[in-house]
Amino acid sequence: MEQPMDYASSGVDLDLEGSAVASLIGALGRSVRAPGQPGAPVDVPGGFGGLVEFGDHLLALATDGVGSKLQLASHLNAWGGVGVDCMAMNVNDLLCVGAEPLAFVDYIAVPKPDPEVHAAIGASLTEACRLARVTLAGGETASLPGIVNEVDLSGTALGFLKRGEAITGEHLQQGDVLIGLPASGLHSNGYSLVRRILEHANADLNATCPFDVSVEGRGVLRFATAPEAMPTLGEVVLNPTRIYVDPVIDLLQHLTATGEHGGRASVRAIGHITGGGLSNLLRLHPSLGWTIDAPLPVLPEFTWLQEVGGVATDEMYRTFNMGMGLVLAVAAEHAQAIRSWLDARLSGTAIVGAVHDEGHHVTHVPSGVRFSHY
Amino acid sequence: MEQPMDYASSGVDLDLEGSAVASLIGALGRSVRAPGQPGAPVDVPGGFGGLVEFGDHLLALATDGVGSKLQLASHLNAWGGVGVDCMAMNVNDLLCVGAEPLAFVDYIAVPKPDPEVHAAIGASLTEACRLARVTLAGGETASLPGIVNEVDLSGTALGFLKRGEAITGEHLQQGDVLIGLPASGLHSNGYSLVRRILEHANADLNATCPFDVSVEGRGVLRFATAPEAMPTLGEVVLNPTRIYVDPVIDLLQHLTATGEHGGRASVRAIGHITGGGLSNLLRLHPSLGWTIDAPLPVLPEFTWLQEVGGVATDEMYRTFNMGMGLVLAVAAEHAQAIRSWLDARLSGTAIVGAVHDEGHHVTHVPSGVRFSHY
Repeated sequence: MEQPMDYASSGVDLDLEGSAVASLIGALGRSVRAPGQPGAPVDVPGGFGGLVEFGDHLLALATDGVGSKLQLASHLNAWGGVGVDCMAMNVNDLLCVGAEPLAFVDYIAVPKPDPEVHAAIGASLTEACRLARVTLAGGETASLPGIVNEVDLSGTALGFLKRGEAITGEHLQQGDVLIGLPASGLHSNGYSLVRRILEHANADLNATCPFDVSVEGRGVLRFATAPEAMPTLGEVVLNPTRIYVDPVIDLLQHLTATGEHGGRASVRAIGHITGGGLSNLLRLHPSLGWTIDAPLPVLPEFTWLQEVGGVATDEMYRTFNMGMGLVLAVAAEHAQAIRSWLDARLSGTAIVGAVHDEGHHVTHVPSGVRFSHY
Repeated sequence: MEQPMDYASSGVDLDLEGSAVASLIGALGRSVRAPGQPGAPVDVPGGFGGLVEFGDHLLALATDGVGSKLQLASHLNAWGGVGVDCMAMNVNDLLCVGAEPLAFVDYIAVPKPDPEVHAAIGASLTEACRLARVTLAGGETASLPGIVNEVDLSGTALGFLKRGEAITGEHLQQGDVLIGLPASGLHSNGYSLVRRILEHANADLNATCPFDVSVEGRGVLRFATAPEAMPTLGEVVLNPTRIYVDPVIDLLQHLTATGEHGGRASVRAIGHITGGGLSNLLRLHPSLGWTIDAPLPVLPEFTWLQEVGGVATDEMYRTFNMGMGLVLAVAAEHAQAIRSWLDARLSGTAIVGAVHDEGHHVTHVPSGVRFSHY
C-alpha cells in the first residue's frame, strides 16, 4: 500500500522531534539570573519569542531557520528570497509577544563557500532588514563539509518592548474577535511535504505555473520570468515569507500612542501560523478555543498541492498556513476599527472568527477541521 | 608529493571562505535604523560582537557554531561539552567589546532527532548557561535530513553594556601590556586540521592519552574515564572551550565600581583567540603591533599534534590558541595589579607581552613567528 501523503511520512517524524525537544527542555536548569536582574527570564505562553528582563524594558530573542525550503532554493539556484524567509520566521515570532524587532544575525553553514550564493543571500538579507526595519548586527559563515550537504540558513532576531506591554494572551476572553492577515504563499513550513508532492506529481519547477496564481495584493518574487509574464511553479513555491512588522508594529505603536480603539490592551494575543498550521493557536491560551468561520481565501498553491498530492484537508490545515500567516485576537468592540486600520496597510486583512469558551480546540468551520492539540 | 599538513589542505579553503564572506558583506545595505534610534548600528573594530544602540545602553549580539569539533563529538557520541563550546564561542566574543552576556538561544540542525543526544546537549547548555551566567531564552531544533548529515549546533548570545563603556581598542597605545588568559584545550577551532592529523596518525581516541595532559588549573571533562584515571585522547581533544565571563566581567565591574587600577579605561582591548590564532589580534587596531615575548605554556595537546602531524610552527600559531584563549591589553602602569586580580580568579594568567608601534604585526618572539594579516 502506498504511504499516505502527509507530513509525517514525508521524512519528518513529528513525534520523534517532539520527544527530542522534550528531552532537551527536560535537561535544562533554571536560569542563574534572578527576577529583577537584567537577563532574568520572563514567562509568556506560546513560546514564540523568549523574553528576558532589562530594566524598564523586556528584550526578546527568536531563533529559527528556513528549513527544507532551502533544498528547493538550492535546486533552482534561486537565493533571492531566502534571507526574507529567514528574517520572517524570526521577526514574526517576535511580533507575537508584542516585541519590536531591532537587530538580526544570520548563520550560514555550507559544505563549501560560494561567493555568488553568498552575495545573493546577502542581498536577500538586506531586503529582509529593510522590510523588518532591523540592523544586521553580524553573522557567521561556517564551512562544514562533513556536516552539511547543502546550504543551511538560520538566524536570530532581537526585539524589545516596554515592561508591562507584553502580549501574553492572559486577557484573552470569549467573544474576542480574530483578525487574519494574508500570507504571501507557502511561507517557510511544510516543505518536506511540498517536495514530496512535487516529486509525486513529477512537476516541472521551471515551467509556467499550472494554475492561476493571481491573488489581489500578493506579488510573486521573480527570478526566472519577467514581472508581466506568468510566473513559474518554482517562483510560486519559493515566494518569500511575508514579514508582518509593517503593519503590526505600527498598529501597536498607534494604539499605544493614541489610546484609540481601546489602546494596546485591545490586542489580546497574536499567533504566527507556522509548522502545525492552525493548531499553533492552541499555544496561546490553556483553555479557550478558536473558531474560524470566515477564513481568508485559500491561496491557489495550497488548492493545487492538495489536489495533485491527494492530501487530506485536516493534514493541509495542520501543515500549512493556507493563506493566513498571522492572526490577531482583539477586543470585540474594537475589532472592525482595528481591521480597517490594518487593511489599509495590508490589503486582504479580514475578520475570520472569534474566541470561544467551549473547549481547547481550533475549529475551521467551512471544512469541519478541528484541532485539539498542537 | 604528499600535501602539507596545514589548515587550508584539511578541507577548509580560507581564501574561498574569505571571498564568500566578502561577497555577502558587499551585498549588504546600510541599516534603516538611524543613529540615536534603538537598534542603530555602532561600529567597533574587531567585529567580535555586533553592537546596536539602546537608549543609555548598547546591546551586543554574537553568533557562532561549534564547527567540525562536532564531528568528533558525534564519532564518540560524547555531547557533554558541546553546549559549553557553543556558548563559549559566542560569549567570549561579547567580552571583547566589554558586553556582559545576558541570554542565549541555540540552533540544532539534525538529520533525525535523537532524544538521548538532545538531552545531553540540553544538559551541556545548562552547564554553559551557569558558567556564562545567562538565561537560555529559546532554541530551535530543525530536522533537515536532506541538508545535514550530522548534528550541527550553533547559537546566538545577547549582551549589554553602558553606552560609553564599549571596549574598542581606540585608546590602545604603544607600551600597553598584554595579559594572557589560559585556554582549557583546543577550544573550538582548527578541528578540520585536528581530524586530519588524528587520521594521519591513526590515533585511537578511546585509548589513554599518549602524552601527559596534566596542566595545573586545567581539568579535562570525562565521559569515558573516571576522574582519577588518565583521560583518553578523545576526552582531551573534546575538552570544552573555556568561558571567560568569570573573571573578565567581574574584573570590568570591579574596575568600573571602584575606579581602582585606573578604572575600566585601563582595559584597552580584548582579543578572543579563535580560528586564525594569534593573527586575531590584528583585528583590534589598524596600525599598532603585538609582541608576545613571554607566552603562556603551550598545552601538551598542541605539542603532540604538531609532532605527529609534522605541522609547521607558523601554521600552528595561525590555527590554534596554543594555550592562550583570551588576551587583554591594559594600561602598563596597572598591568601587574590587574594580572594579580585575574590570576586569583583564573590561575595561570600572566603578562605575555606588549603593544608596539613598529608596524601592524603580531610577533611571537620565542618561535619567531610573525603575522601581518588576519
